[in-house]
Amino acid sequence: MRNIRNIHERLNLALSKTLKDAKQTPAPPKLAASVDYAVFPGGARVRPTLCLSVAEACGEDDYAIAESSAVALELIHCASLVHDDLPCFDDSELRRGKPTVHRAFGETVAVLAGDSLIILAFENLAKGCEKKPERLIQLIKILSKSSGVPFGICSGQGWESENEINLSAYHQLKTGSLFVAATCMGAVSAGEDPEPWVELGARIGEAFQVADDLKDVTSSEKNVGKPTGQDAKNSRPSAVNEYGVDGAINRLQDILSGAIASIPACPGEARLCDIVRKQAKQLMPSFAADRVL
Amino acid sequence: MRNIRNIHERLNLALSKTLKDAKQTPAPPKLAASVDYAVFPGGARVRPTLCLSVAEACGEDDYAIAESSAVALELIHCASLVHDDLPCFDDSELRRGKPTVHRAFGETVAVLAGDSLIILAFENLAKGCEKKPERLIQLIKILSKSSGVPFGICSGQGWESENEINLSAYHQLKTGSLFVAATCMGAVSAGEDPEPWVELGARIGEAFQVADDLKDVTSSEKNVGKPTGQDAKNSRPSAVNEYGVDGAINRLQDILSGAIASIPACPGEARLCDIVRKQAKQLMPSFAADRVL
Repeated sequence: MRNIRNIHERLNLALSKTLKDAKQTPAPPKLAASVDYAVFPGGARVRPTLCLSVAEACGEDDYAIAESSAVALELIHCASLVHDDLPCFDDSELRRGKPTVHRAFGETVAVLAGDSLIILAFENLAKGCEKKPERLIQLIKILSKSSGVPFGICSGQGWESENEINLSAYHQLKTGSLFVAATCMGAVSAGEDPEPWVELGARIGEAFQVADDLKDVTSSEKNVGKPTGQDAKNSRPSAVNEYGVDGAINRLQDILSGAIASIPACPGEARLCDIVRKQAKQLMPSFAADRVL
Repeated sequence: MRNIRNIHERLNLALSKTLKDAKQTPAPPKLAASVDYAVFPGGARVRPTLCLSVAEACGEDDYAIAESSAVALELIHCASLVHDDLPCFDDSELRRGKPTVHRAFGETVAVLAGDSLIILAFENLAKGCEKKPERLIQLIKILSKSSGVPFGICSGQGWESENEINLSAYHQLKTGSLFVAATCMGAVSAGEDPEPWVELGARIGEAFQVADDLKDVTSSEKNVGKPTGQDAKNSRPSAVNEYGVDGAINRLQDILSGAIASIPACPGEARLCDIVRKQAKQLMPSFAADRVL
């Protein structure tokens, strides 16, 4: 049984190994450095941690598959951040407290770093499934659905270029889809049916988006590691714009309770509830931390 | 037994079907239109045709796998063109005789169209391998190796951002790698060992690059469907810069003869030689067409 710190250490080791393979000769030095820069030191690693936790709760029988699913999720997430920060999108200066990839390495390298990370995600997944190829089919279907068009991150980001936008569909695609992939890939990695795990992923994704919107108005730039107040500046849809700060906190509370209630019966159910509860506390703004669950 | 026209028709049908699935609700309208725009009407479809031809020559036993490999190769190729045309790379106005994707739909949509096509390639491959998942592992390894870092298209494009460049490695990565994937994925689709097919792919890829460099100096913009004279304008490495027009034609001739000689013994060897010879003729500049083989 692993604690979160232990999960993070193993995950970072697996990410490092994957990137080390990608950076060998004949990789161009700037591109090689940029993929590392985009993935390390990393954020909270929420999606891969969720995937590994669900796999463990389901009684994981092949750690290589669960780990390659977790790595793939984090690589796709990092790729989406790199492209989302580009000048033609948000033109962000900072990400996780340091200059964004295009500010550090130039725009061409940032486009290619995102592309490379997407490809690496699928490559790594295939390598992890050598002993059980039948699971790979399902894992790739889930990962591609959650990241591409019409149901994934690309679709969500694409809505930002349209004149009219549906707030709930937009959030579901841009953020929610990869959380659903995280719980479902965790289940499939352990040989289980993904369907009962959709709701947990969807609710955590929704909570995460509301928490992000709250951070954008209630935190300082220093604490978040990227510029705040961006939603209002870019007239972007946000739960705080829609419900107000207090309304958004109530909503976050409801979603998180629902997430925990949705966890299916499984061998590691109690422990998984505990992990989700701990992660949920970190999503609340500090002044409202006592309002969780 | 299928002729090239027949191969193209079936391939376009398969590409259409894949894109139709990608464009369903809730895909944003501009992004949905852009993926279609990036893939149709298309160029010569050389890579997927090569893949299907090799699969047929090897005695293909599951057309769904060969077709999904061919579709995946074409989607990755189209994605690389969309990103390569972006303002931060070549800033191209025209591609295949019409405005490039970012000129037609904007830069954000073009970045996402490329990402979406990459993801679709892997998704489509997984769907084609449902009956033989063990082949999927090998196919994904080949496709990702040929498109990512350190051995694929991203690596090749990344070398354009470095101060010093190795011409032959650059071409091999940026163009050759996907041709090697085409022949190898054709063989694996038919349940055969990919190794004996590496040379054919490598030689055709090399020939294709030399032919492209020749077109850049010997053809008009109208015939090529994109601006010519770009290599000199952008001080880009080129076989014509290195060997001169006549030297480059000699080199093309040698490479193509070597390609045909490299075809491994297989059930459809004679027919495959014929197909490669026909494609080779189209690579020669018209004034030197009689110098092929």
